[in-house]
Amino acid sequence: MPEALPPTLELVPAAGGYVLRLLDQTLLPNQEAVLELVTVPQVCEAIRMLRVRGAPAIGCAAACGVAVAASRSQATSLDDLRQELHEAIRALAATRPTAVNLFWALERMRAIVENGDDVAELVAALVSEAQAIIADDVDRCRRIGQHGATLIPRGARILTHCNAGALATAGYGTALGVIRAAHEQGKVAQVWVDETRPLLQGARLTAYELQREGIPCTVICDNMAASLMAQGGVDCAVVGADRIAANGDVANKIGTYGVAVACQHHGLPLYVAAPLSTVDYDLRDGAAIPIEQRDTREVVHLAHLSEKAVVPDGVAVYNPAFDVTPAKLVTAIVTEAGVVRAPYVTALGRLRQQQAGAKG
Amino acid sequence: MPEALPPTLELVPAAGGYVLRLLDQTLLPNQEAVLELVTVPQVCEAIRMLRVRGAPAIGCAAACGVAVAASRSQATSLDDLRQELHEAIRALAATRPTAVNLFWALERMRAIVENGDDVAELVAALVSEAQAIIADDVDRCRRIGQHGATLIPRGARILTHCNAGALATAGYGTALGVIRAAHEQGKVAQVWVDETRPLLQGARLTAYELQREGIPCTVICDNMAASLMAQGGVDCAVVGADRIAANGDVANKIGTYGVAVACQHHGLPLYVAAPLSTVDYDLRDGAAIPIEQRDTREVVHLAHLSEKAVVPDGVAVYNPAFDVTPAKLVTAIVTEAGVVRAPYVTALGRLRQQQAGAKG
Repeated sequence: MPEALPPTLELVPAAGGYVLRLLDQTLLPNQEAVLELVTVPQVCEAIRMLRVRGAPAIGCAAACGVAVAASRSQATSLDDLRQELHEAIRALAATRPTAVNLFWALERMRAIVENGDDVAELVAALVSEAQAIIADDVDRCRRIGQHGATLIPRGARILTHCNAGALATAGYGTALGVIRAAHEQGKVAQVWVDETRPLLQGARLTAYELQREGIPCTVICDNMAASLMAQGGVDCAVVGADRIAANGDVANKIGTYGVAVACQHHGLPLYVAAPLSTVDYDLRDGAAIPIEQRDTREVVHLAHLSEKAVVPDGVAVYNPAFDVTPAKLVTAIVTEAGVVRAPYVTALGRLRQQQAGAKG
Repeated sequence: MPEALPPTLELVPAAGGYVLRLLDQTLLPNQEAVLELVTVPQVCEAIRMLRVRGAPAIGCAAACGVAVAASRSQATSLDDLRQELHEAIRALAATRPTAVNLFWALERMRAIVENGDDVAELVAALVSEAQAIIADDVDRCRRIGQHGATLIPRGARILTHCNAGALATAGYGTALGVIRAAHEQGKVAQVWVDETRPLLQGARLTAYELQREGIPCTVICDNMAASLMAQGGVDCAVVGADRIAANGDVANKIGTYGVAVACQHHGLPLYVAAPLSTVDYDLRDGAAIPIEQRDTREVVHLAHLSEKAVVPDGVAVYNPAFDVTPAKLVTAIVTEAGVVRAPYVTALGRLRQQQAGAKG
């Protein structure tokens, strides 16, 4: 039996209030270290340094950050507590700009902050909301997996980029949720794992997850994928998303766009798997999605793993964390509410109405 | 004034015979160490370990290996010397399979081995032939540069992949020869340098060369190139080649094919710069080009720069050193004899006849 994956994150009671227990993903696959975070600055640091990453997971972590802060606050009045929590929400929202799930989760927490009749009740409600966000996320991923598996043919050789797995969510994963579900149905012959420069989330995290699950996989450098497609070695690509505009344009880990272009050139489907919390209905298209620029040392020092610089001192380096794949290159978007295809404005709009209807 | 580049290689007289002085490219950009090689096994090791790399440069190094061996041989008869040299040629030819320039240069040396009336005369002829191969290579690169520069527009933002520079040749470079010549004409606004996983020849070598020349450049991860194209930041791509089939299919560093697909998608020209010694007229198309598979530790340990493995132990890794770009994605091939365009069978065939005519 393969060893089970440690949880991505857990919100647990401890002395003095709640603790966010977080698997430090920067140390994987070599070390499984669990951090115990008890302050908002600690949670912000963990998000900014990618100790926790993946759009759904950072949403969950940020929600937990608010709950932890509430549970450990010294505030005795509701007003004081609310002020502290609004500051916490502002700080958490400023950690990373691209993944919209962060803002979505913080909005859910902010709505709770406005409720409650006393401090204890508000704290309890916030802990409960954060736990619900975590539980919902796993549930959504399982549904994404079930819907997505219907798209995967028997004997599939699937390419994936970055990590959109259990580690990028509260569990099970989005793109890897589809792959897990297809594997449970005996459909997966091979997963090609793009190593995903600069921070190597494919090599470090996706390979680690797939190995634990016993799903056959092979790591490649990102620049090998197109050639594998030309040789007929790939049947489809499945990736996650950090933000999806109303028209179906997809921001995801840098390199996703190149995969999309190569898929189109070879007549292969590209599937994007993400919960509806990743859809930003306020953005008409992908051009308005803010793209995070990260420290160039991630490139120069090889994900901080090489002491030596691989780029000569003084040479410019460009390091955007994400790119935008236009909707026309996306074969389908797999959500917890089902699989949608172009035109995405209509299809995603319909899902939104259904969701509103289900809640209303 | 920028500091001049050290020579890629030099064949120089020394005590006991000739020495191949070789800049150890595995240590760049952090250290400029010059190796002094005096045996065939040393030269083979240097080629196999990529201390010298790039199709034209390994041809030159192999030719020098034969000359060094001849100059230091203890053989007193022509027959004994010839036997030693045939063994040297066999060993040098077995170092790397893809770049055809290696075999082309060794064929030139083999033809000399058959001539000569005594040992001293044969040694002198082999040294002279190796020096001629080096001098010819620089000359060819300068002509490639002149022809190629005519294709580059003013203010060009040029993408290049791997290193097809002075370091990949006896000097000046093929793809970087085109960029150098265009820069001398004031045409180059920016060179986007693909870092080129797994061994990072772009980040380590191309950036080092361009910086020394004062040519503006920015290093990117390979997976960022397509997105730069989508943003309108690239005007053309210029790459080298390790072998070109008679129909114009091009084997070059892994990732070139992905660049070619992205160029086509964005309507950008892809130029391949290479001496005619890179054309293998015996191969009808690229399918028959042998593709070297290299040690997976290049991927797992990040070009040997990370002590830690970035892929979990036991997970499969695929590491082809080259890919094949079909002729239909190649806008033009720039050779020392001029720029040729499709249909390449005819165009390359005509150059071959011209060359034969010029020699005859």
